[in-house]
Amino acid sequence: MIELGVSRVRIIGIGCHPGQLTAESRAAIASCDYIIAADKGPGDPLLALRRAICADVGVELVAVADPPRDRDDPADYDGAVLDWHDARAAAYDSVILDRPGTVGFLVWGDPAFYDSTIRVVERLRLEYDVLPGVSALSLLAARHRVVLHEVGRPVLVTTGRRLVAEVAAGHDNLVVMLDGRLQAADLDGDWDIWWGANLGSPHEELVAGRLGDVVSSIRQARERARDADGWVMDTYLLRRRR
Amino acid sequence: MIELGVSRVRIIGIGCHPGQLTAESRAAIASCDYIIAADKGPGDPLLALRRAICADVGVELVAVADPPRDRDDPADYDGAVLDWHDARAAAYDSVILDRPGTVGFLVWGDPAFYDSTIRVVERLRLEYDVLPGVSALSLLAARHRVVLHEVGRPVLVTTGRRLVAEVAAGHDNLVVMLDGRLQAADLDGDWDIWWGANLGSPHEELVAGRLGDVVSSIRQARERARDADGWVMDTYLLRRRR
Repeated sequence: MIELGVSRVRIIGIGCHPGQLTAESRAAIASCDYIIAADKGPGDPLLALRRAICADVGVELVAVADPPRDRDDPADYDGAVLDWHDARAAAYDSVILDRPGTVGFLVWGDPAFYDSTIRVVERLRLEYDVLPGVSALSLLAARHRVVLHEVGRPVLVTTGRRLVAEVAAGHDNLVVMLDGRLQAADLDGDWDIWWGANLGSPHEELVAGRLGDVVSSIRQARERARDADGWVMDTYLLRRRR
Repeated sequence: MIELGVSRVRIIGIGCHPGQLTAESRAAIASCDYIIAADKGPGDPLLALRRAICADVGVELVAVADPPRDRDDPADYDGAVLDWHDARAAAYDSVILDRPGTVGFLVWGDPAFYDSTIRVVERLRLEYDVLPGVSALSLLAARHRVVLHEVGRPVLVTTGRRLVAEVAAGHDNLVVMLDGRLQAADLDGDWDIWWGANLGSPHEELVAGRLGDVVSSIRQARERARDADGWVMDTYLLRRRR
């Protein structure tokens, strides 16, 4: 039983498609009084996917209009992100104040990599726990049947924004996330790439090969994914050829 | 139907405890004629866990004695690993030749990080697919309720063996796996650590704090985990304090 007016939050990783929901995440969703999900506007495809999961488990979903975010590569990137976290937290806080209970957030993939949910929920100052999910990194590797590093070697997980600088600093085995501009196309040198878009969706696209040979295939596959799903999110492994 | 004498292999990520089995991995196990699992000797605890999962799903497990591996930090580390992959592949190959069909391998956590199964199965020259699981990295982050990197920043995933050199090269946010000697204890500087051992087991241990303050707590927790489970496997996030 929840003390009157006192809420708790569960951050639940759900993997990259409904078949990747773990038994414990499914049980965690069922334990919630309701799920809060961001609504990014008419026809938000990720909201529709979350609705389907909640309907399947039998838990209500409360959609909350997502505050606008300045994505135009502002000079103060970190500051813009923090403002947006604050705005999201304020929007969720007003819902939870009206309706105390156990409140869930469903995180596509896994909350540990390039996801804001933990940082937003920290601002609510409520008790919370986190359940992991299958990450897009793991699904990328599985689809291409590769290990993300060579034997005993490291892998750097980074963003498209940082890729060119990371390579200049000497990295030769990298997983890139959040790259809306295929920054890999600008790299010098000889690389292999294992690329995927919309991993786990029915319109998932995969391309692998020598970077210089497959850049145009990747660009075409990106557009196919965007046309089919209404959104595109790509992730890739880059390894310098020896 | 499998063509007479022609086998296929499924490499199945199972997460870090039975509650982390995904719906698709469970279905993949059920689709196998049998599961092959390495037997590392009397009372092998990870073999027992795989047996329990197979019993639950209703698929036979065939235990195969694991070839010995030289773990004494040989000068030729890569060569020793490759020899061991060859020996494992030969052992599995003889089982599969005797008994063709759909053969599964259950990977604790996820096959994409510091796991040999994909590399061993490649040597069998059979058709195979890979299903991802919840990785120990994701579970570590969930238990400590942290994101594995700062906003928009990278994370280096590496091994204990390489940690000191990676830090000397300037890395300040690292996830360390396969560290049997708590190499972090040798680092200079001021660090935060989020540490876990035997993540997902009933005797899981977690410690977080300023590295210099918690090294002895970690050593004690490591011994508790080893005593309770008969094995110890630790994973940690290290971040330099600003």
